[in-house]
This record gives sequence, structure tokens and C-alpha cells, in this order.
Amino acid sequence: MSEEQPLSDTEDLQERLHEVEDLLAGYRQSAVAALDPESPQPAQDAALTERILDDLRARLDAMHPADVAYALEALPLEDRLLVWDMVRAERDGEILLEVSDAVRETLIDAMDRHELVAATESLDTDELADLVPDLPQEVVDDVFQALPPEERAQLRTAISYSEGTVGALMDFDMVTVREDVTLEVVLRYLRRFDELPEHTDKIFVVDRDERLEGVLTLEDLLTHDPDSDVRAAMKKDVVRFQPEDKAEEAAQAFERYDLVSAPVVDTENRVVGRLTLVAVVDFIREASEAEQLANAGLRGEEDIFASVWNSVKNRWAWLAVNLVTAFVASRVIGIFETSIEQLVALAALMPIVAGIGGNSGNQTVTMIVRAIAMGQVKPDATRRLLKKELGVALINGVLWGGLLGALAWWLYKSISLGLVMTAAMTLNLLLAAFAGVGIPMLRQRLGADPAVGGSVMITALTDSGGFFIFLGLATLFLL
Amino acid sequence: MSEEQPLSDTEDLQERLHEVEDLLAGYRQSAVAALDPESPQPAQDAALTERILDDLRARLDAMHPADVAYALEALPLEDRLLVWDMVRAERDGEILLEVSDAVRETLIDAMDRHELVAATESLDTDELADLVPDLPQEVVDDVFQALPPEERAQLRTAISYSEGTVGALMDFDMVTVREDVTLEVVLRYLRRFDELPEHTDKIFVVDRDERLEGVLTLEDLLTHDPDSDVRAAMKKDVVRFQPEDKAEEAAQAFERYDLVSAPVVDTENRVVGRLTLVAVVDFIREASEAEQLANAGLRGEEDIFASVWNSVKNRWAWLAVNLVTAFVASRVIGIFETSIEQLVALAALMPIVAGIGGNSGNQTVTMIVRAIAMGQVKPDATRRLLKKELGVALINGVLWGGLLGALAWWLYKSISLGLVMTAAMTLNLLLAAFAGVGIPMLRQRLGADPAVGGSVMITALTDSGGFFIFLGLATLFLL
Repeated sequence: MSEEQPLSDTEDLQERLHEVEDLLAGYRQSAVAALDPESPQPAQDAALTERILDDLRARLDAMHPADVAYALEALPLEDRLLVWDMVRAERDGEILLEVSDAVRETLIDAMDRHELVAATESLDTDELADLVPDLPQEVVDDVFQALPPEERAQLRTAISYSEGTVGALMDFDMVTVREDVTLEVVLRYLRRFDELPEHTDKIFVVDRDERLEGVLTLEDLLTHDPDSDVRAAMKKDVVRFQPEDKAEEAAQAFERYDLVSAPVVDTENRVVGRLTLVAVVDFIREASEAEQLANAGLRGEEDIFASVWNSVKNRWAWLAVNLVTAFVASRVIGIFETSIEQLVALAALMPIVAGIGGNSGNQTVTMIVRAIAMGQVKPDATRRLLKKELGVALINGVLWGGLLGALAWWLYKSISLGLVMTAAMTLNLLLAAFAGVGIPMLRQRLGADPAVGGSVMITALTDSGGFFIFLGLATLFLL
Repeated sequence: MSEEQPLSDTEDLQERLHEVEDLLAGYRQSAVAALDPESPQPAQDAALTERILDDLRARLDAMHPADVAYALEALPLEDRLLVWDMVRAERDGEILLEVSDAVRETLIDAMDRHELVAATESLDTDELADLVPDLPQEVVDDVFQALPPEERAQLRTAISYSEGTVGALMDFDMVTVREDVTLEVVLRYLRRFDELPEHTDKIFVVDRDERLEGVLTLEDLLTHDPDSDVRAAMKKDVVRFQPEDKAEEAAQAFERYDLVSAPVVDTENRVVGRLTLVAVVDFIREASEAEQLANAGLRGEEDIFASVWNSVKNRWAWLAVNLVTAFVASRVIGIFETSIEQLVALAALMPIVAGIGGNSGNQTVTMIVRAIAMGQVKPDATRRLLKKELGVALINGVLWGGLLGALAWWLYKSISLGLVMTAAMTLNLLLAAFAGVGIPMLRQRLGADPAVGGSVMITALTDSGGFFIFLGLATLFLL
């Protein structure tokens, strides 16, 4: 990525966006005037339009690719595509890498095959690999054709790793040296580079067969005597990854050991790539966003200028699932309609039992999923965690259930209704605790992702379960 | 932080933890035997116990501080404190920095004043600042006393910045040079260091008054001719931060511009500290975890070995809030008890209307909060976003509401009940969309954090609102 363009902090960024927006407003005005047959000065209007576009082009040229990406994301579709047209073609690739998936789609839709192939020409293999899944097949074919054989093989390798693995995050920009040369030789070797690969904090030391022997940090290179050997200055104890490793585990290792970059090796310890903290941070941010979106039942990030219809598609699946679980809960209530007819207070009180159960279950499941993700929970811990969570549920049931029972007693002047309320709340909280521990632990044991779907399942269970327990107890004891 | 200890990937880490656990099991066995008055060989048992402890000590010495922290977090309290006792005192400080807040508390509780002061001696000022809030006041006083004046001032500054600012994340480990020296001089200057500050990827270029002139990246230092001036090799266009800047905005700038470190300057452009990507990553991870926990209504992270009582305290606030909102919803139903008595189907159907409204509102609020956090939403965008979300709600209302209406018609053989169901769902989805846009936008305009509390408020509104709309319409049109 080019670093010539000025960088800006958030306020500057907003200012630049405003400037672009002002130019766009001016452009629209003069373009309309130029097309107006009654305009007194059509030629001047057209000239003004051209001047504004030139100005816009110059301003975009001066912006960092990430800032252009920011502006594209913040503009409605029509303005976005106009700005996109004004961006110099050779910068298209790096900007496509920076924008969000949803916005990238709108930009790629607006480009023809030739433009897309041209956009990819400035990119490294690992960057290409990020873009390939979003490109039309014919463009991908052209891109492969245009690459030299070595890079073609790299790209094929890079896209072969599935999302969420180290292979999908690594790049191929590494500097390697042999251990039997002096640091002076390394210094001279580096001086021959115009620039080093981005985020180089260490050089990989390899043997004749590209097998990793150790790493030479730039720090050690700079602080050791130039006449000493690489062997003497290098570190042999190196955190290394394999392309198949889980990205999440690599991210935890980067955090645990405060790494900036690390070598990626194959099963025979040959260096095949490099993982950088910058790539890891992108991964962390994306993973946490994906989780946040999934928690709220959104399939993916939404372009805030997406059409109503695209938004509906992004959200329907979750609503459908919830509709089914809500319908099931409704049918559970349906079983007890005669009881409700006789004692209508039940209808008013039952959502409390179900709701608090759901909240409490979600607390448990969040805590357990987090502990599992941190690697702190072994499958054999189920019994201990269950005991604790059931204890918490019991206390909460007696406390809050008791309070609610007292309120029900006071509202409906029935002490037995109050007791049923307390008992139902306690039982539903115990059910929530049981499911909150059981669902993620079971998923972990079955090899599934413990984080997925826990919340929906808990809520479904505590809704239907809560209604069943409360109305069932009421039917047994009150009617 | 020391880097001598071997680093390990996740599997190694689990293995090391197992070794520690095995040693602990052996220790317990032999310690019990040694205390048993009927043991045939008490002396041998005692000797074995000692040998095991020595072994444990040696094994912990060989582990990276982050790995020791991991083991401490994964062990139940009693074992944890035994292991903690076996850790060499001079490593206590760096390990305290690595463990989670909840576990740190248990460790600090087990240490006396003298041990705590000793633990802090190996730490840098910025690390001390992270620990100070968790230390007893008397220890903090001793720590301040023991520091040389310059570091005392740094520490005072560091703890004065509130959480979530750049000042709270920055460190004071920077290397600065003047612009009028040659790179050769810089190289010789660096060689005098035993080690550079961690994560040094650039050197700050300052004038006589410590004002920032530019940065010299190690890359430029290594690839330029050693005889050239710093002035010729440095970059003048530098992303810089001020201590009062929001950490979240700095994190976004680090991601946008792929930074590894950046200078922090005061209002007169004097370098006062340094922000590193490693600190930013910690911040990102903690912020996203805090959000995740808050979403589920947990106050803070929980030690998975926390007592039942500590867990109850961590979770009660959220349950209390939800109890209040559930109670309000219950009272809304209470208003319509006569209607429910006449048409008990209402009781069975009303949770569907409320539930789907809540789900849909949470989708909207998540999307809007995310867009605001990315800086893509200006306060004047309310009208446009509202229009779109109301559109989405209308489509969903007609689709899903229509489906549910048809089901209600089929179940209860009443077409008018079906129509009321469809109308109520549509209206509640519109209410959810309105609140989902309105609440975060309003909070943003009032200068509050748009992410806080949105979900609780939406759910409260769609529950009470959903019951009111559905039961109200039913009372008007069906009875």
C-alpha cells in the first residue's frame, strides 16, 4: 500500500469528507444548469462542471486509500459511484481492499471486466486472495492468466485456505537470511531494498532448504555488533504457525506474546509465509463484528445506504427462526387456555417468568462461551460449572422470585398465586442455568462452535419452559 | 517484559497446564501422606513433597509470564494460590499485568504489602499505571515513594488520564533523535542500547524543545545510505495523537493506516509518549469483550472459579432492570384482563407480537450503533435512516404478520382475530424501527454513548408496546 498520501486523524477525516460532499453538491448544481436549455450561459456551466470534477479528482488523489474508502462508505450510492469514477484506476485495487464487503459489492457491480482486471494489477498475492471471492469468475480467470507462475501458485495456495485459518491471513512478503553471515552483510543486503515488506520487525533465518532456524529482530540487528554472526544475534525460540492453524488461536498467541509478526511454516518447518499483527487485528475486529451482528440476527454487515429490500434479505432468517420459537411458545400457552380463562392473572404474570429466565440463561451462556473461547474450560468441568450456576440460579430464584411472588400476592390478593409464581421463577431459572451450561459444553464436546446459536436456544427453552412451568403449576395447585 | 522464556502455541500451552496440574495432584497426595501419623515413611513423604515443589518452581520459571497467567486463570482458587506462591517474586509484577481483572483480584488479596511493593519494582511506569487502580492505597503510597522523581511524575500523569483515552494506553518508552545527524550516527547511537523499547518500528525526530519534526522508520534507517541525514530519510507526515484523544478513534486510525506505533504529543507538539499497536489491540479486545458482557447483562468478566455469591453480585443489576421492565409489561397486560377473559386466544398470541418486535428492533439498533461507531452516520441522517427502517419494518410486518395472522385465523377460526394479529405485528415492528433508529441517534445527539442500553430500552418498549397494541386493537375490534 502506498504511504505517500497524507494521513489524517478523525477530525481531518470528517473535514475531507465534507469537502468532497461540497464538491459533489457544486457538481450537481452546475451539471443541472449545463443541461438546462434555458440557461443563459451553457458553455460556462459545462466548463464549471469540468473544473469541479478536476478539483474532485485532485482531492481524491491526495487522500490516503483508507480515507477514500471511508468517504465511499459514507456516501449514498449515486454519489459513491461518481466519486469512484474519479479515482485513478491504478488506486482502485487498494481502495477495494479497504472498503466494507457490502460497499465493495456496489463498487464491483459498477466496474466492467477490463477495469476489474486492471484494478488487481497493483496488488500483492495475499491481497488478491482477499479480493478474489468477490470477483466474477471471468475476471478471476483473467487475473490468474496475467500472473507470473510463482505468484499464480501463491495465489492458488492462498485462496485454498478456508476463512478463519492462518493460511487465509498470511502474506508472502518476508525477508530471509542465512545464519552464517555477519550482521554487517545483512545490513548491506537490506540497504539494497527500496523498501522492506510492511511491518517487518524481524527477519527469518533459514537454512539451505528454507527451513526456519530462528528469527533476527531488527532490534537485535541494530543493537548487536555488526561483526557478529546472525547465529549469535538471532532468537531460536520462535512462535511459529502452520497455515492450517486456527486464526483465533494465532490471534490469542499474538496477544499473549505481544508479537508484531511471526513466520508461518509447513509441516517440514519450511517458511511458507508470514503473519503480521496488522492482519491479526483485522481478523479480530471482523470476528468481533461478525459475532455482534450474529447476536442481533444480522447475516452480515449492511451498507447503511442499502436498499430496503437488501436489508430485508439480511435480516429475514433470524426473524423466521424467532417466529418459529415464538409460535411454539404460543402453542404451549394454548394448552393451558382453560386455566387462563379461569384465572386471568396468569396471562399477566407469565411473561415475567419467561423473560427473567431468558435473561439469566443468556448471562450464563455468555460467561461459559467466553471461558471456553479463552481455553479455560475443559469438557470435564461441566459438573463443577453446573453446580455453581445452579447455585446462582437458586439464589436469584429465591430472591427475585420471592419479590415477584410477594408482588403477585399483593396485586391479586392470593398467597397461593404468589407461591406458584416464586416456585415457577426458581424452576425456570434452574432450567436456564442447566441449559446455559449444557448447550455450549455439549456443542464443544461434539466439536461444534460453542458460541453459535446458544442465545436463541436458551431463549426458546426459557420461553416455552417458563410458560409450561408456570401455567402447569398454576393448573395443578390453583384450580 | 522478559522474552527469555520459551513461547508456546495453544497445544503446548495445554500440555504445560497439564504438567502443572499433575505436579499439583502429586503434591497434594504426598503432602497428605506426610501429615498422616500412620504413614510408614513420614520423612520420605516430606522429602517427596519438597522435591515436587522444587520441580513446580523450576517449571514455572521456564514458562513465559503470559503462560503462567494462563495457568493461574485455569486453576481453582486453592491450587492457584499455591502456584502463585511458587512463582519467583521478581516475576510477580509482569504476571499480575497478564491475568484477567477478576483473577488479579484474587492474587492481590493473597499478597501482603511488602510483596506487592516488591512486585511493582520490575515494572515500567505505564505498566504500573495499569496496576495502581487494583492496589490498596497504602501500597500505592509506598510505590510512589520508591520511584525516582521523573518516573513519579510520569506515573502521576499516566494515572490521571481516564480510561478510554490515548493517555491511558500510551507508554513512555521512546527513542528520539535530531534531524541534523546522519543515519550512521543514529545506527551507532542505537548500538549503545542493550535493547530497544519493545515494538519500536520508528524513531521520533524532535527539535531542541522536544517538538515532533517527523519519524524515522527502522525501514528507512536500514534501506537509506548511512551517510544521508535523518532529515532526508524521515517522514514528515505523521499520524500523531494527543493524550486526551479517544482510544477508540486512535484504534480506528491504527487500523486505517496500518500503524505499529505512533507518537503522542501535547498541545504544543512536544512528544510526551508513544502509542503501540500492541496496546491498541489490548484495548480493542477488552472493549469488545466489555461490550459482549454488557450485552448479556454481566457487569464484568467473571473468574470461572468465582464463588456463587460473587457471580450473583456480577449479575444482579441487569436482572433487576429486566424485572422492572417485565413488571411494567405485565401491568400493561393487567389493563386488558377483561378482554383476555372473554377471548383467551389473546393470551396465547400476545407473546409472539412482543417477541418479534423485540428481535426486529434489536437488529435495527445494532446496525445503527455500528454505523455510528464507524463514523458513517451524521446526526442529520435520522430522517433517511428512519425512512429506510420503517420500510423494512412495513415489509416484515406484512410478510411475517400476514403469515402469523393466517395461522391465528386457522387456529382460532376467526378471520378478524387474524387481521388484528397482522395489524398489531406491523404496528409493533414500526414502533421497533422507530425506536431502533431514534434511541441511538438521540443519545448521539445528546453526547451520550449510542451503544449503551439500546437493547434493554428497545425490548422494554416492544414488550409493553406490543402487548398494548395487540390487546388494545383486539378490545376495540373483537369484543
